[in-house]
Amino acid sequence: MTIHAIQSGLDTIWVVLTAAMILLMEGGFALLEAGFVRSKNSVNIIMKVFADITIGTLCYYLIGFALMYGSDLFGVIGTDGFMLKGDFTHLKLSISTDTFWLFQGAFVIAVISIVSGAVAERVNFRAYLLYVILMTAFIYPIAGHWVWGGGWLGKLGMEDFAGSAVIHALGGFSALAAAILIGPRKGKFASKDSSSIALPSNLPLASVGAFLLWFGWFGFNAGSTLAATDVRIGHIAIVTMLSAAAGGATALIYTLFRYGRSDAPSVINASLAGLVGITAGCAYVSDQSSILIGAISALLMIAATNWLEAKRIDDPVGAFPVHAVSGVWGTIAVGLFATNGGLLTGGGWHLLVVQLLGLFILCAWGFLLTWGGLKLINKWVPIRASNDEEELGLDISYHGIMATHISPEFLQVENYFKEK
Amino acid sequence: MTIHAIQSGLDTIWVVLTAAMILLMEGGFALLEAGFVRSKNSVNIIMKVFADITIGTLCYYLIGFALMYGSDLFGVIGTDGFMLKGDFTHLKLSISTDTFWLFQGAFVIAVISIVSGAVAERVNFRAYLLYVILMTAFIYPIAGHWVWGGGWLGKLGMEDFAGSAVIHALGGFSALAAAILIGPRKGKFASKDSSSIALPSNLPLASVGAFLLWFGWFGFNAGSTLAATDVRIGHIAIVTMLSAAAGGATALIYTLFRYGRSDAPSVINASLAGLVGITAGCAYVSDQSSILIGAISALLMIAATNWLEAKRIDDPVGAFPVHAVSGVWGTIAVGLFATNGGLLTGGGWHLLVVQLLGLFILCAWGFLLTWGGLKLINKWVPIRASNDEEELGLDISYHGIMATHISPEFLQVENYFKEK
Amino acid sequence: MTIHAIQSGLDTIWVVLTAAMILLMEGGFALLEAGFVRSKNSVNIIMKVFADITIGTLCYYLIGFALMYGSDLFGVIGTDGFMLKGDFTHLKLSISTDTFWLFQGAFVIAVISIVSGAVAERVNFRAYLLYVILMTAFIYPIAGHWVWGGGWLGKLGMEDFAGSAVIHALGGFSALAAAILIGPRKGKFASKDSSSIALPSNLPLASVGAFLLWFGWFGFNAGSTLAATDVRIGHIAIVTMLSAAAGGATALIYTLFRYGRSDAPSVINASLAGLVGITAGCAYVSDQSSILIGAISALLMIAATNWLEAKRIDDPVGAFPVHAVSGVWGTIAVGLFATNGGLLTGGGWHLLVVQLLGLFILCAWGFLLTWGGLKLINKWVPIRASNDEEELGLDISYHGIMATHISPEFLQVENYFKEK
Repeated sequence: MTIHAIQSGLDTIWVVLTAAMILLMEGGFALLEAGFVRSKNSVNIIMKVFADITIGTLCYYLIGFALMYGSDLFGVIGTDGFMLKGDFTHLKLSISTDTFWLFQGAFVIAVISIVSGAVAERVNFRAYLLYVILMTAFIYPIAGHWVWGGGWLGKLGMEDFAGSAVIHALGGFSALAAAILIGPRKGKFASKDSSSIALPSNLPLASVGAFLLWFGWFGFNAGSTLAATDVRIGHIAIVTMLSAAAGGATALIYTLFRYGRSDAPSVINASLAGLVGITAGCAYVSDQSSILIGAISALLMIAATNWLEAKRIDDPVGAFPVHAVSGVWGTIAVGLFATNGGLLTGGGWHLLVVQLLGLFILCAWGFLLTWGGLKLINKWVPIRASNDEEELGLDISYHGIMATHISPEFLQVENYFKEK
Repeated sequence: MTIHAIQSGLDTIWVVLTAAMILLMEGGFALLEAGFVRSKNSVNIIMKVFADITIGTLCYYLIGFALMYGSDLFGVIGTDGFMLKGDFTHLKLSISTDTFWLFQGAFVIAVISIVSGAVAERVNFRAYLLYVILMTAFIYPIAGHWVWGGGWLGKLGMEDFAGSAVIHALGGFSALAAAILIGPRKGKFASKDSSSIALPSNLPLASVGAFLLWFGWFGFNAGSTLAATDVRIGHIAIVTMLSAAAGGATALIYTLFRYGRSDAPSVINASLAGLVGITAGCAYVSDQSSILIGAISALLMIAATNWLEAKRIDDPVGAFPVHAVSGVWGTIAVGLFATNGGLLTGGGWHLLVVQLLGLFILCAWGFLLTWGGLKLINKWVPIRASNDEEELGLDISYHGIMATHISPEFLQVENYFKEK
Repeated sequence: MTIHAIQSGLDTIWVVLTAAMILLMEGGFALLEAGFVRSKNSVNIIMKVFADITIGTLCYYLIGFALMYGSDLFGVIGTDGFMLKGDFTHLKLSISTDTFWLFQGAFVIAVISIVSGAVAERVNFRAYLLYVILMTAFIYPIAGHWVWGGGWLGKLGMEDFAGSAVIHALGGFSALAAAILIGPRKGKFASKDSSSIALPSNLPLASVGAFLLWFGWFGFNAGSTLAATDVRIGHIAIVTMLSAAAGGATALIYTLFRYGRSDAPSVINASLAGLVGITAGCAYVSDQSSILIGAISALLMIAATNWLEAKRIDDPVGAFPVHAVSGVWGTIAVGLFATNGGLLTGGGWHLLVVQLLGLFILCAWGFLLTWGGLKLINKWVPIRASNDEEELGLDISYHGIMATHISPEFLQVENYFKEK
């Protein structure tokens, strides 16, 4: 056995294991969203995540990966490698293309799952399936090419280590476009001056989701090294942890003093915001900076949540505040705090300006293509569930089943038990 | 530190980490099954899985492993190595016997957990415990020896990389035998012409289970290399993902167009069917073949579900359609699509015939020994719960507790909250 | 690439991956505890775990780690390395300090999460936050220094591989002090001669927790090698599995014959007790010994649960029986069964006496500092929830939300469904 074979094996298992962790994040998304929405729409949101994983994976295999990582054309798009057929030596990987694809495939599913939360409880299921194809085959892969696939933003020097911008800001602005276009849930802004809050159907379930996401994020960030011998792995993992902790702690203490109670959904979402915020900079910033990044992510997430309410935009699980706002902040933070090139660490303005330019492009791309794409889909399949379907709940309307079902015998048993 | 020591360490952590992932699949089985059955039987099914893990592990340690991997006698059975005492140099492992045992121990628990689903909601708990011993100490290990332990089927050239046949087909046919012998749940086929469907108690919970199983499957298939430097790992992981995605997508779209609604339990089970289907061939087939294998697994799973209903066989969580049918198909698919030796890839009939022979032997072995074993157990402990126990629910009957309990205060709080 | 770089990368990913697994155990703690307590207190207990992770992580980063692993002063305390600034070459690590910190940070959160269970359903949330700081910045790190950080107990020869004593016994005795001081839940010991048992709100949820804990424990024990080339890894993993299996099987069979029913909470807690029991000795005892250790852990756990009831001490999720009692037993078991130095394996009394001394010190330290600390906190913030808060449930009182919420539409749907 040569050293080279061992190194190759080491890198491979590192990437395969972290990719599996990222794929488990889909379980996290599903449960977080299912726990946050109302009980009549829980199955539907889980089925949307299943659509993300199954249809999204196939689209990325057939088309998306080639557009993202195929041979570059004018810095704008990849042109070959559909169904993994082609030559990918330009990627200069130490792992096999298959292994690399698995990791990238886990990323694309994360993007589409961000949008699935914003359109919860009212999107037409068939229209959503068409949008999944659009996002995983075209919208994300093309933008991803610009930064990571050898395209123009990467060449300009944009730094987005594991995707605060490419994954979260793009996904989050796509989510915003979809939420605005589809409109708020019935009754959400019924009275003129206030909004009614739909209570989460199951917070413990949402927490399972958050823990799975947190776990998977170590794969997301540290795995993005794509090489087990990358000496930054330990540092990436620790700043990921510190930023998440700072995010959660900030929301826990802020809501405790501001409202007299630690608000559970805010704490959960702020931990995730901390994770989103550090995703771009995890390989570039110091651990002290990561604490600051996480704490600010939490405050921005809370502010953005209030802003959406004020603007009467309905984003049931907080996809825009958590992913778009923290993603934007995290990408800017690289321009501020990167130990090499950050404005506040003596590196001047260059990196910050590139980050801002890249952010503007990616957010606009996600927003506009989602807007246009959904408009187009709407001509064929209405993107919004009918009044009846929404009122009845999407679970019954689209899947003919409810999330939970207490058998009549159970109630009898309950009585039997009380009598004992 | 020598290269050899590093390679040995690398292989060891690869196998230990993937074994832990497979053991987490038990959590997946427990929740999938608990979510699919009625709420009065959820605790019982989880306790059955705990019996699988705890008693099954000890039986495999004491007896099963020796019969499976001990020194071969006539290609039929292993003869030494009880309690891991003995010489296992004939296995030619690069990892320690302990590490190898952990991985194999995780496999045996998966087999018995397949059966636990098929007998849900009506098996006598004490009889089930005896069956766990039978399966984990004898039925599975002996059959496993034939294919993987140096026995006659392996020598004939049967190829079953991670166990579509040895684990899933054998487990699934054992499940069928148990389901037939124990008979349907009360009321399942009450009217002559139709069957009543027991609604899943908790689909989000079942989904958690499916995600944990999906995650663990990367360990199951890729870990079966037993060596981190095996260059097939990336490929194994990617075809595992593609087959699962194809399975889930097929069911999602098929049920959408066939019934006008995407059926959630079908989508969940079809993803798992795709995973079962690729388990034998993950190291041998191309990625395009894996998509086909997954899609066909899904359709066969749905057909088999309908066949069971027509035959009035009650398999509450779909153990036979998911594991037996997809397992059989996946094993045959190796004979069809293996890049080296498959019929459709120019390899002739030899491999396909061996696969069919092996399948016949393994399925018959699982079916007959389970049938005979349960008949035998039934002489001592009735294998079926009494009418009263079943009606009351196995949770109360065998464990004196219910799955969920709303404290009276909770209802008061609910009212208090409404008044606000 | 040099062999040294590869070894360093290999060790790093091993420790990062196992640390992530340990952090996922927090999800396990949260769900286990949320499932065991009453439904009106589920969110609160999850928020306590979020406080453990977020605030605990920051405290350990700012202060705790330095006290535990900084330059030793008189064998009593570490003195530098606050915020990871400082020289840690005295630790002689093959991995980076960042990586080591991540692993140790995952440990400290486990300790505080043990206590969170014992004070469930009645602790004042703000007081608990102060206690989190005390435990993660001071109580645990100082004691940890004595055994693992170069302090006097380690120098005496105390052996606690992954923390039966340092984590579980210390955490468990701290839990006992807190449970006694805060007093039982209202109504728990209402009548003079009996105790009323609060039924678990959600056993399937508690099971998810147990499976996540079990999975994470492989990281906890095997990861404590801190080096992937440590030849003990396979053995550590196997004895961890065997002890857990023996613990669960013992409780399953014992309660079946003693009470005529396999008690689900006992089986779950006994599996965990088996895991706690093997944590000290996983690198030192034989696999046969591990089965004995696990089985005895289960019986002691059950006995301790009854003892608490008899003493009218209220420990809602069994933190003391699972962690303290099994932790003490596991540490003693090293003195009895260690292949090198155990009393029953011919090693004489020395090791056993050191283990007992260390245990006494650590348990007393945890108990007394928690007692004193809570007394102190109580002068400023009452450590017990008010009568009203407790009656209403801590979820509404401290977080203004309930764990689950059935939307009114759901009930309508349920009726609609019944009519079909």
